[in-house]
Amino acid sequence: MTVCMYGMGRFGRFWAEELSRVVPDMRGYNRSDREFPPTVKRVSFEEMCASDVIILTTAISSMEEVLKAIAPHIKKDALIMDCCSVKVWPVEMMEKYLPAETEILATHPMFGPDSGKNGVEGLPIVVSPVRIAREREEEWLRIFQALKLTIHVMTPDEHDREAAFTQGITHFIGRILGDMHLEESPIATSGYKSLQRIMEQTCNDDWQLFMDLQKLNPHTEEMRSKLDRTLAKMIKYLQP
Amino acid sequence: MTVCMYGMGRFGRFWAEELSRVVPDMRGYNRSDREFPPTVKRVSFEEMCASDVIILTTAISSMEEVLKAIAPHIKKDALIMDCCSVKVWPVEMMEKYLPAETEILATHPMFGPDSGKNGVEGLPIVVSPVRIAREREEEWLRIFQALKLTIHVMTPDEHDREAAFTQGITHFIGRILGDMHLEESPIATSGYKSLQRIMEQTCNDDWQLFMDLQKLNPHTEEMRSKLDRTLAKMIKYLQP
Repeated sequence: MTVCMYGMGRFGRFWAEELSRVVPDMRGYNRSDREFPPTVKRVSFEEMCASDVIILTTAISSMEEVLKAIAPHIKKDALIMDCCSVKVWPVEMMEKYLPAETEILATHPMFGPDSGKNGVEGLPIVVSPVRIAREREEEWLRIFQALKLTIHVMTPDEHDREAAFTQGITHFIGRILGDMHLEESPIATSGYKSLQRIMEQTCNDDWQLFMDLQKLNPHTEEMRSKLDRTLAKMIKYLQP
Repeated sequence: MTVCMYGMGRFGRFWAEELSRVVPDMRGYNRSDREFPPTVKRVSFEEMCASDVIILTTAISSMEEVLKAIAPHIKKDALIMDCCSVKVWPVEMMEKYLPAETEILATHPMFGPDSGKNGVEGLPIVVSPVRIAREREEEWLRIFQALKLTIHVMTPDEHDREAAFTQGITHFIGRILGDMHLEESPIATSGYKSLQRIMEQTCNDDWQLFMDLQKLNPHTEEMRSKLDRTLAKMIKYLQP
């Protein structure tokens, strides 16, 4: 089985390197020149398309364009896996653009180079089997288990609702704090230091990821307006 | 030297117990019945008033009432120390109600039973010498040093500005999240778990402390409206 990561950005490099610990022939493709982890073999566009499994780690908003570009060239019985932080929208795109025989396993590895810097053991991955043979699905669940990930099988919509009110709200608050330029303080409490770490970790991610997370998850608008209403209520309550 | 804690609530008990490790004769007074740490001696109102040093840990909004009640009964050369999370307002009250000979050392121990549960070593305490003899001030700095606290000497206004944008914003966000009832999730990221811990730690404190922190610090209103403006800007930016 040949497995190729499409997109070797910050997350792609991290995920490819983790997978290379349990996937013998781990490959990577990136349109532009990039540094690769030593255990991931750099391949051409043609070699990437000829892989048995292609894992897409491009920006969520680039999914449509990438699917159009690879669909005519991939092996018809390939397995395509995405890693998007939203699930409803990219699953729709994969169903729309991929050949009917191509298998689809939607995933959301809920970690990255920051949260996984001391290892991914115990960290969560969401798996939505969209259209995939049972054997192949079980093979990938075994691979994720070998990395000691905590696996959660759910539908794309279940994922998006849950993610909007967990990862979505964290990134939204982190970016607001980033915009406010929270500064270090000699009298920082431990709670304030945690808030600063949330800000730093969030703002370390791509701006594009933040935008996609907020705009392409159908449940984040509800989260934002709930936060807005609660803030307004609290401000009003505190007025003299 | 006899030292008495006035107010043995959640914070008072914690701070009295910590101080009893380095202050030989540590006493405590509480109007109603309360559990006392074994190293803190329960005393009457009269014994409390006869102490050389009285440390006030009552709610910020009760300061005025408490000062009026004790002022006629304390030793004229006593040292009164407050522990309020705001400094400008309680210092004004102490200057207004205490006898002119009575010494005043304003403090803000920036920790509590939650953040200090593994020991207070290295945690910050703000000290504002309002009117106090140099010798007595140095005696108390040595006591705080013996507890290995990090001491920051600043004016009440410097403290309040700094606190509004550190402790103040943390408590404000924590309470908003508490009102939104952030729930546990199988797909919680580490950032989301930090956000939940901030919510829990904040909401564990008295509601009155939160109100006082927000209403009696002259700089928190600016913090809240900056947060509100930034949230509104971000929501607008994300609209389709």
